[in-house]
Amino acid sequence: MNKFERAQELIKELNVDGWLIISDEGSDVHSHFLLGVNAPSLNYIYIAANGEHQVLAVEMEAPMIERSLKNKGINAKVKSFSTKKELPLKLKSLLNKPRIALNFGENLFNDKSSSFADHLKVGDYLAITDLAPNTEFISSAPIIYGLRSVKNQEELKDLRNVCKATLEILETIPNIVKKGMSENEIKAEIEYQYMKIGKPSFPSIVGTGAHSADPHHNTSNKKIEEGVLLIDTGLKIDQMCSDITWTLWVGKKPSNEFLNAYNNLYESKEIANKYFVDKTPANLPAIKCREYLSEKGYDHEKLFFHGLGHSLGFVAHDIGPRVSWKISDEFKLFENMVYTNEPGLYWKGEWGIRLEDDIIIGKEKCEKVTYNHKEPLLI
Amino acid sequence: MNKFERAQELIKELNVDGWLIISDEGSDVHSHFLLGVNAPSLNYIYIAANGEHQVLAVEMEAPMIERSLKNKGINAKVKSFSTKKELPLKLKSLLNKPRIALNFGENLFNDKSSSFADHLKVGDYLAITDLAPNTEFISSAPIIYGLRSVKNQEELKDLRNVCKATLEILETIPNIVKKGMSENEIKAEIEYQYMKIGKPSFPSIVGTGAHSADPHHNTSNKKIEEGVLLIDTGLKIDQMCSDITWTLWVGKKPSNEFLNAYNNLYESKEIANKYFVDKTPANLPAIKCREYLSEKGYDHEKLFFHGLGHSLGFVAHDIGPRVSWKISDEFKLFENMVYTNEPGLYWKGEWGIRLEDDIIIGKEKCEKVTYNHKEPLLI
Repeated sequence: MNKFERAQELIKELNVDGWLIISDEGSDVHSHFLLGVNAPSLNYIYIAANGEHQVLAVEMEAPMIERSLKNKGINAKVKSFSTKKELPLKLKSLLNKPRIALNFGENLFNDKSSSFADHLKVGDYLAITDLAPNTEFISSAPIIYGLRSVKNQEELKDLRNVCKATLEILETIPNIVKKGMSENEIKAEIEYQYMKIGKPSFPSIVGTGAHSADPHHNTSNKKIEEGVLLIDTGLKIDQMCSDITWTLWVGKKPSNEFLNAYNNLYESKEIANKYFVDKTPANLPAIKCREYLSEKGYDHEKLFFHGLGHSLGFVAHDIGPRVSWKISDEFKLFENMVYTNEPGLYWKGEWGIRLEDDIIIGKEKCEKVTYNHKEPLLI
Repeated sequence: MNKFERAQELIKELNVDGWLIISDEGSDVHSHFLLGVNAPSLNYIYIAANGEHQVLAVEMEAPMIERSLKNKGINAKVKSFSTKKELPLKLKSLLNKPRIALNFGENLFNDKSSSFADHLKVGDYLAITDLAPNTEFISSAPIIYGLRSVKNQEELKDLRNVCKATLEILETIPNIVKKGMSENEIKAEIEYQYMKIGKPSFPSIVGTGAHSADPHHNTSNKKIEEGVLLIDTGLKIDQMCSDITWTLWVGKKPSNEFLNAYNNLYESKEIANKYFVDKTPANLPAIKCREYLSEKGYDHEKLFFHGLGHSLGFVAHDIGPRVSWKISDEFKLFENMVYTNEPGLYWKGEWGIRLEDDIIIGKEKCEKVTYNHKEPLLI
């Protein structure tokens, strides 16, 4: 079943006439996800309950979109426009339906949040609702969740493949890191290898010394110093991303604090892995991980100030509940969802450590598709 | 004057109490632009007419943001939150003002479009308006236009620098391209050089043969063949992007069609350059370019199906009117705006050519900050 067919099923379940995606300058990832080609200019994708799918694209991208859909066996009419002035007329008949789903989120400040569906921009929304005053527009969140949270076998195959390729590249890190190199140079070396077979799934974080204490450090021109080196990086091949963090020690004599943190964090990650199973509440792996760290004497609330994991897929932050001790246990994990498992400990302004692996949630146990070394790499 | 101070001036001119930017997963580029650091998680930036600026950021990014603002001499209070449930209370006092500007566009289907301001997502908008039912929210378009369309001297210096660095790398292309290489491998080699000094300003387009006929071709694993090779690529260093297209010929005997197209396109670009001057209507360079191509026998309407140029700056598609023969002549170009000048000719399914350079609009004439070779490179 191709993506349009699967979406069509979900559209019918939601009892809407169609699902409209508007993407401009890549603002909605579902354009790339559905079309199978990156069309960065403005395009409108309409997937219809009755199967009369349409794509409206700028003239210079329409042929490329048409070929991509054909290659994937997707039956959709591709129309083109050359200026935005043509759009109202072209969109009006498309929008003349009782109920259409759009990519917006609801309840953004609470547990029922569907922020994952929030892609549509306000100006586009105003323009669309103005064109179709009698149409009821509802959130597409259930469609997106159904389409992307649980992965199919083809996606899981792509995931295993991209994770294997990433690990092969990460194993070259000891050969890459040379005295006098900067964080940016290490990033460039890793991503150069990515680009020959795919592309970075996000800008790699390379943090030396105190930079490792910022979980989202912006990789800089700072030279690598002796001590902690945190590398958070991922590759995208085909339709799946990897997302891995290794924390290494530059030099031959790691501090005891580092060795202890590494070993305890490694173990806390293994413990969390036991709870990445079908139908588990999404807070449970995080609670168990933090219980262990707490037993080992770490003030986890102060030192580990981010979630344990996130869904991974077509993008590095994909669809599915966050794995965090702070969310309600009504949110569940299901078989064939893909997650990161990434406990961290950070001493602000001093140093930090994070070990991140990717797993597939299984019926009885998770499948580990990446690894961290049991003992820290010394380079 | 730092960016917050300049924004504060524009906020006062617009007669609003403040400007609120909401960015989640990098959804609003103004977060990076204003903070001077890439904070990809959720953050709220409020720049106040009265100078009481605030940033609300996730716990793990707040220290990094605080340091960046301090380095830039920006006086703003940085507060952090650990779950979204804390947000309504924290935002309520911020939003309790008569008039606030938000990043949304208006009139998206006509010439008066402010789509360049359209970053805010519908779910965020609904959440915000729900929290502040008595606040009037208006489009921030005049603030964004004032802040980013005309570049300051520091930005122009960064532009010249990044363009020079890009050209030095592009001059190595004849040494990079080897028999048997794929488009992706050439992209990787170029971007590897970028990453050592900055980062790609967008994913490079490398198109061999028929792929050159798609202006937004997705670089693929296809091996480079004899004939046309189109490379559209850009680098970002500090706060400015370059965006350059060279079209080369692989082999020693370029076709006459290619040579003629190259020479005529090169000349049409030079002609357009004469009209990139202060106070010129934004359609004029495009009209003059197309007149020339038409004289030379090209059916420009069929073969050149995109605009002549776009604003260039903090992002590759920056703020300012498009340069296109299809827009109204009430839109003007002004001194120190930065534009691409990129005529192209495409024979669908066969081959295409585009020559793209970057220029700074001057009082009397433009400053050319990049070049294409007068004769095509044969490699």
